[in-house]
Amino acid sequence: MNRRVEVTYVVRCPAAEIDSRATALAIEQSVEMPLSAIADSAVLEEIVGRVERIAPAGDGCFGVTIGLADATIGTDAGQLLSMLFGNSSLHDDVVLSDVDVPAATAAAFGGPHHGIAGFRERLSAHGRALTATALKPQGLTSTALAALAEKFAAGGIDLIKDDHGIADQSAAPFAERVPRIADAVQAAGARSGHTTLYVPNLSGDLDRMRTQVACARAAGVRAVMVAPMVAGFATIHTLVAECPDILFVAHPALGGASRIAPPLLFGKLFRLIGADAVVYPSYGGRFGYTIETCRALAAAARTPWHDLAPSLPVPAGGMTRERVPELLDVYGADTMLLIGGALLDAKENLVAATADLVAAVHRHDYMR
Amino acid sequence: MNRRVEVTYVVRCPAAEIDSRATALAIEQSVEMPLSAIADSAVLEEIVGRVERIAPAGDGCFGVTIGLADATIGTDAGQLLSMLFGNSSLHDDVVLSDVDVPAATAAAFGGPHHGIAGFRERLSAHGRALTATALKPQGLTSTALAALAEKFAAGGIDLIKDDHGIADQSAAPFAERVPRIADAVQAAGARSGHTTLYVPNLSGDLDRMRTQVACARAAGVRAVMVAPMVAGFATIHTLVAECPDILFVAHPALGGASRIAPPLLFGKLFRLIGADAVVYPSYGGRFGYTIETCRALAAAARTPWHDLAPSLPVPAGGMTRERVPELLDVYGADTMLLIGGALLDAKENLVAATADLVAAVHRHDYMR
Repeated sequence: MNRRVEVTYVVRCPAAEIDSRATALAIEQSVEMPLSAIADSAVLEEIVGRVERIAPAGDGCFGVTIGLADATIGTDAGQLLSMLFGNSSLHDDVVLSDVDVPAATAAAFGGPHHGIAGFRERLSAHGRALTATALKPQGLTSTALAALAEKFAAGGIDLIKDDHGIADQSAAPFAERVPRIADAVQAAGARSGHTTLYVPNLSGDLDRMRTQVACARAAGVRAVMVAPMVAGFATIHTLVAECPDILFVAHPALGGASRIAPPLLFGKLFRLIGADAVVYPSYGGRFGYTIETCRALAAAARTPWHDLAPSLPVPAGGMTRERVPELLDVYGADTMLLIGGALLDAKENLVAATADLVAAVHRHDYMR
Repeated sequence: MNRRVEVTYVVRCPAAEIDSRATALAIEQSVEMPLSAIADSAVLEEIVGRVERIAPAGDGCFGVTIGLADATIGTDAGQLLSMLFGNSSLHDDVVLSDVDVPAATAAAFGGPHHGIAGFRERLSAHGRALTATALKPQGLTSTALAALAEKFAAGGIDLIKDDHGIADQSAAPFAERVPRIADAVQAAGARSGHTTLYVPNLSGDLDRMRTQVACARAAGVRAVMVAPMVAGFATIHTLVAECPDILFVAHPALGGASRIAPPLLFGKLFRLIGADAVVYPSYGGRFGYTIETCRALAAAARTPWHDLAPSLPVPAGGMTRERVPELLDVYGADTMLLIGGALLDAKENLVAATADLVAAVHRHDYMR
């Protein structure tokens, strides 16, 4: 049976033109040709995108909902993105705003293997928010990064990820860096009794990523970070399917600020292809996302959606210790706060600064 | 030796803030942390991005040129994109405008194996522009698409590509469609003596694409289409390296209209990772690119750049037979005109309409 994926775009357009613009959008995202040149009635009825709804969206814009045949997408995550926004991304006045998929499409893509519950279980952390930090800067040696990681772990942090700029450079090659950091984190955990997850950043093509996952596994690591917009949705979706033992943290690199609505891209689409956690630039930091966008993003990641496990929202990008109460009031306990640079600025007091952050998160009162 | 990749951004920013904004950009695209927290002098000197130039760019904007250490990029095409624009893409007031790479970086990425000369040689087409069309709509069977392709070939077209929405759907699975269309095109060529290249669209992850290339090769096909922004730069760069016998046509899907300047993305970056031809939405069609953007894009694809072969510009997106003289006056002979929907609208006169387009391109006087 042919089901429709409902895709909502926000289009800036004079009211007098919105009907024809919506039709053009439905054609662009499906058959890409004049309907007059299509003789096949099955294509006209089942494949051509269908304008389902048009509604004013304020500020000279309209929300246009198009029904796309799920047969045109199948189960290829790259094709999903291409059908949702491939050509229309080239129009500067169109934003990809929201997507509803049939239950069968959600089931076919599969979503996260672990999601929020997976992090809580691995970390034995329940009823509280989680804490994370980043190893940086790129350019440090594996040994220097491992020394940093050991301090973060000694401070009791839940998760330590590579900075997204740390790939497989000669300063700290993946195959050298990951076992060294994993050992340092495990050693610190053995002393403190606290579990810390180390999350190395994958890079390169699918084969390179497979090799990196194998290297991480051999070092006892069971979580990795990927940037789906850089690597390609199909690459990540395949990797997730092949690695049911691995937690996937998705980084927003190359995700843009507005052409694809951040709640949709990071909260829904990253979740659909299997991100157990989604890092995003929170309001009030170095990036310009509003608090409304961030609330909607976190809600999209966590809200019940077919049978997909919820993804863990990871606000980041210039967060500080001082903002912990405010951030947790806004985001709630099913959140992982990622504080990188602000902790590193503590330098020789890094362990204490980390422990102070961790304590602030642990003692936060969600009922106040 | 540490060389710098020079990256130019256009930033919308008050004049009083541009210095600090430029510094922040240099940090964001390299070490992503407060410089005060970096103790390692080699990182400070060699890895931290360096503000090279700031110049007014009109309209309340500034051009900011940052020198990024080539060591942070290496030869990973995904990492290239991540370092150029990973985090800054999340700022809505920053455009990635231009990139200059050292000769060693250009040589390491390699560029097109064939480029413009490769198309001319395969097609025995010299001193004139080339012609292309697209098989559509998605939803047609392999047999119906092959029948269309045979007519286009009978009309003397140089290149026939799958529509970018045609992937591996059940209506026309790749493994069935590609040999069938290739046979139809070869049969038409045997009758007419004219060579037509069939260019199937690849989809999925790297493994799927490898399988598809092998399938295409077995059918005598030596050119394929890919969408680098969908598949991921690293996927395409690897595939190009593995397939020196194949011509790669890059499709702009998911390329956006403005956040990465189209001349840079399609003209330079797609070329750098190996696109022999670059399809882009031309001015005057269904998309909003200006004539200046399109001229700059075609120039970037063709201009001498280190030792990289030039890529063939393929203006598309609502082109028509009537505009051939104008388009060729603007773009010149080292161009492939892609006219899809407008030809298909000729329906039962498709062969004649194709022949008419081909004749118009062949007889164009570039000296007039």
